Amino acid sequence: MKKLYEGKAKILYSTEDTEVLLTHFKDDATAFNAQKRGTIGQKGKMNCQITVALFQWLESKGIQTHLIEQSADDKILVKRVKIIPIEVVVRNIAAGSLCRQTGLEEGYQLPFPLVEYYFKKDELGDPLLTRDRLFVLELATEEQLKQLQTLALSINQYLQELFASCQITLVDFKLEFGIDTQGQILLADEISPDTCRLWDQNESDPQRRVMDKDRFRRDLGQVETAYQQVQKRILDRLASHEA
Amino acid sequence: MKKLYEGKAKILYSTEDTEVLLTHFKDDATAFNAQKRGTIGQKGKMNCQITVALFQWLESKGIQTHLIEQSADDKILVKRVKIIPIEVVVRNIAAGSLCRQTGLEEGYQLPFPLVEYYFKKDELGDPLLTRDRLFVLELATEEQLKQLQTLALSINQYLQELFASCQITLVDFKLEFGIDTQGQILLADEISPDTCRLWDQNESDPQRRVMDKDRFRRDLGQVETAYQQVQKRILDRLASHEA
Repeated sequence: MKKLYEGKAKILYSTEDTEVLLTHFKDDATAFNAQKRGTIGQKGKMNCQITVALFQWLESKGIQTHLIEQSADDKILVKRVKIIPIEVVVRNIAAGSLCRQTGLEEGYQLPFPLVEYYFKKDELGDPLLTRDRLFVLELATEEQLKQLQTLALSINQYLQELFASCQITLVDFKLEFGIDTQGQILLADEISPDTCRLWDQNESDPQRRVMDKDRFRRDLGQVETAYQQVQKRILDRLASHEA
Repeated sequence: MKKLYEGKAKILYSTEDTEVLLTHFKDDATAFNAQKRGTIGQKGKMNCQITVALFQWLESKGIQTHLIEQSADDKILVKRVKIIPIEVVVRNIAAGSLCRQTGLEEGYQLPFPLVEYYFKKDELGDPLLTRDRLFVLELATEEQLKQLQTLALSINQYLQELFASCQITLVDFKLEFGIDTQGQILLADEISPDTCRLWDQNESDPQRRVMDKDRFRRDLGQVETAYQQVQKRILDRLASHEA
């Protein structure tokens, strides 16, 4: 196994099969474009487990993903894809940079799900892209962008439904997509409390309800416990589905 | 006359006629959201003169503006409109924040004119808006946005043509629009070296060619001379048109 790429939260390795890669989920946590660094105990295993559960559930709904199988507590085997350098963010409720940039209040219920595109480029601070900027930068074709939007909105519906049944509000989340050797667009990367904003519907306090990486970003404490809760509720729910 | 509003470069006064306002162009110059301040000698008069010339020329092409008439060297009478809080920016060549945010090189010829929308809100730093953010903030309706885009692209064509005939490249520019009492969208504010990037086609040096507020922003010197040149070339050109 050769290390191909080390990111902030995951390491990517090659395998014997050139079409298969191995993703290792790390406990490292970063925020604010890596200006804040730390670790969250057991995060690698939890995010791996949550990503596998969510990707398998989305596959059962007809969404194609890069996931092949889990190979260890914190490792998955995935199809080799060419990652589209766009972070696709879906927002149901205003939070984070949307509030800072528009003045909307945190918690504002958006009239429709916002699908937004950010340029995946650390040195530029992952800036927001308009559709036209995306085309000028040749990051996707009009047809691909249409597919990304349709996929993002479908995934949002499936995830909202699942999280709601776990008493969790899906505030917003980030997706990445890749293109496989057949030119198919597959959901890639991860879906976890690192990449979602999740609010506990059993808590009304704006700090206590936070179940995601905002606990780390904003020093709210109990980060590991929050991730554990997300994992437990999702796995329990999916197990009861299967039963 | 009562002062209604003092902006960074202009002051707005009421007049005896409730439907008419008076705009006074100041010599004050600011940049980087007013973090840099200074004055440019004669700027008020030059920008007033240039705006009047360009607005009258656009009117002759069928673009409706808020301009009634010039009432002094640095003052114009305008129709009272409700300003739409969007800065409409048209870009023909990459420069400024587009380069900083996307990594495109200054001077890159865009494959099509980019029409971009910025939220006119100093305390947020006039952030870039996507179409969807604009709708969520209820800054314009879909129909109004379509009109703004059509108007911006027409104005770009007319201005590009005029500036080209003055050996000036229109790199990018900012427009503001207002809605009159009949619900019509009128071009408002100003068009001047304060609100455009203009490059002298007779100069190839990237600093010497600059004929706009970037001379002030970037401390390139000869700011007043550059504005004078723009004024002279446009007025000479339009005078020869009329002759």
